[in-house]
Amino acid sequence: MTPNESLAGKASVIGLGSMGYGVAQSLARAGFAVTGFDTRADIVSRFATAHGAGAASLSAAAADADVIVIVVVNADQTRQALLGEGGVLEATKPGAVIVSCATMAPERARELGAAVEAAGRLYVDAPLSGGAVRAAEGALTILASGAPEAIAKARPALDAMAAKLYILGDEPGVGASFKIVNQLLAGVHIAAACEAIVFAKRLGLDIAKVYEVIAASAGNSWMFENRVPHILEGDYQPRSAVDIFVKDLGIIADISRSEKFATPIASSALQMFLMTAAAGMGGEDDASVARLYAQIVGLDLPAPKA
Amino acid sequence: MTPNESLAGKASVIGLGSMGYGVAQSLARAGFAVTGFDTRADIVSRFATAHGAGAASLSAAAADADVIVIVVVNADQTRQALLGEGGVLEATKPGAVIVSCATMAPERARELGAAVEAAGRLYVDAPLSGGAVRAAEGALTILASGAPEAIAKARPALDAMAAKLYILGDEPGVGASFKIVNQLLAGVHIAAACEAIVFAKRLGLDIAKVYEVIAASAGNSWMFENRVPHILEGDYQPRSAVDIFVKDLGIIADISRSEKFATPIASSALQMFLMTAAAGMGGEDDASVARLYAQIVGLDLPAPKA
Repeated sequence: MTPNESLAGKASVIGLGSMGYGVAQSLARAGFAVTGFDTRADIVSRFATAHGAGAASLSAAAADADVIVIVVVNADQTRQALLGEGGVLEATKPGAVIVSCATMAPERARELGAAVEAAGRLYVDAPLSGGAVRAAEGALTILASGAPEAIAKARPALDAMAAKLYILGDEPGVGASFKIVNQLLAGVHIAAACEAIVFAKRLGLDIAKVYEVIAASAGNSWMFENRVPHILEGDYQPRSAVDIFVKDLGIIADISRSEKFATPIASSALQMFLMTAAAGMGGEDDASVARLYAQIVGLDLPAPKA
Repeated sequence: MTPNESLAGKASVIGLGSMGYGVAQSLARAGFAVTGFDTRADIVSRFATAHGAGAASLSAAAADADVIVIVVVNADQTRQALLGEGGVLEATKPGAVIVSCATMAPERARELGAAVEAAGRLYVDAPLSGGAVRAAEGALTILASGAPEAIAKARPALDAMAAKLYILGDEPGVGASFKIVNQLLAGVHIAAACEAIVFAKRLGLDIAKVYEVIAASAGNSWMFENRVPHILEGDYQPRSAVDIFVKDLGIIADISRSEKFATPIASSALQMFLMTAAAGMGGEDDASVARLYAQIVGLDLPAPKA
């Protein structure tokens, strides 16, 4: 199917990393004619061959699209892709909707939304939760907010990406706020899971048994249940990297200071992610915080299976 | 039914607080002839009238029992009830088994077990999880360890008390270790839930909606799901009090120092429970940590419904 034959409309995806590539696949599967863009030309070629079309520049990706989904790492990259010279916004056609997926401070989401709306285009603040596998399955959780006409225009694309789509408010920033509250808890729970598992090891316990018992007890969390198996298997291939929580708990630390709101638990967790990154594991799985604790106290965690 | 007509044997329960009373009820329902003891005579009378018999002293409670379940607050109270003058141990008959339920440092559980075994009696380290409602339903989670003959002797009573009975090792201290790892996570998750909910309020979010969204997302924990409704309803009647986590995270802090093991996340959470207790809320529900955050930053949380 070429873009001109699309059933659901023309979509572009800016950023074909593990999340963006999966989002683009899900949109193609739902009937969108999808154009992918990334700064890495080989990934664009791979996507174009398998699922749709590739663009050689941001403006080429944006020019003909009804919906442009930006799936980059943070607010600065989103701003650059959207508002930088040769960026998405100046190339969009009237009525196009921008769907911004990076986790960012609510204030940054409001700023980007205002810039897009001032140019007569539509903007949806749509942070994602769920990881690369669920991105490729169209089974993400999306925490969206935006003007009703922006949400309406983006809706078919959001539905193609999400298993759970929350519409949380009628202006940008609300989705970002919900996401950052989720990330506060998720980050603390990962760091606490790592602290607890190595503490259990120090107490001489069988940590596989600890996993089984805690997962069925009041000490459980979604992150404990999801991440501790990485530790038990010695598998630190990044499903989500330490650096993601350095960034996201960093956003919370920034808001804490600017808003004069103390977040002592999140702050402790941030320090553990920072220490893990400082020890050279920033690009590895976020369960690597357990390796930092183990290294500090001189304990061995399970090694990867051969 | 009187004790002499019992089907399952003679049990005594030392400590008829909200957990112990429920345990005693569950044992009676399972066919044990149950004698209750508490320092508060009115509670002993209430139990005796409704469910079995009451004893006027520790030694009277212990004298004829096959199994003695001690459900007091901490290691010191357990030691006093068990080993103090006129205490349980010296009154027990040969072959009796002591089931110790308080959360305590593993080292304390090992010491108590050794003292009981030296006197020719049996000891099971059996910390409980699940709260007063599940205690009364016989639906607790029990994290047990002890010598196989002790476990075998206590088994009918443990089965009567528990929906999930884990036998985790063949000596006292292992059950205590599992419990304390659970408490590390549970305490951190409560404090983090309180921090996140008040942070969300500061961001201007509808906290009932935050509860709904997070409970379905990767930021969820057992404690978030269980405790945040107390905040939403403004209901701080103690299902489990702030002081419990002052104690249990305090045990972790003690172990951290004695074992030279850093627990920065648990340590931050302990400080928040301590601050909440310092502000006069030690006896109230542990979700009161949210009231401390709200008080500090000058925000209003939901008031109790009339």
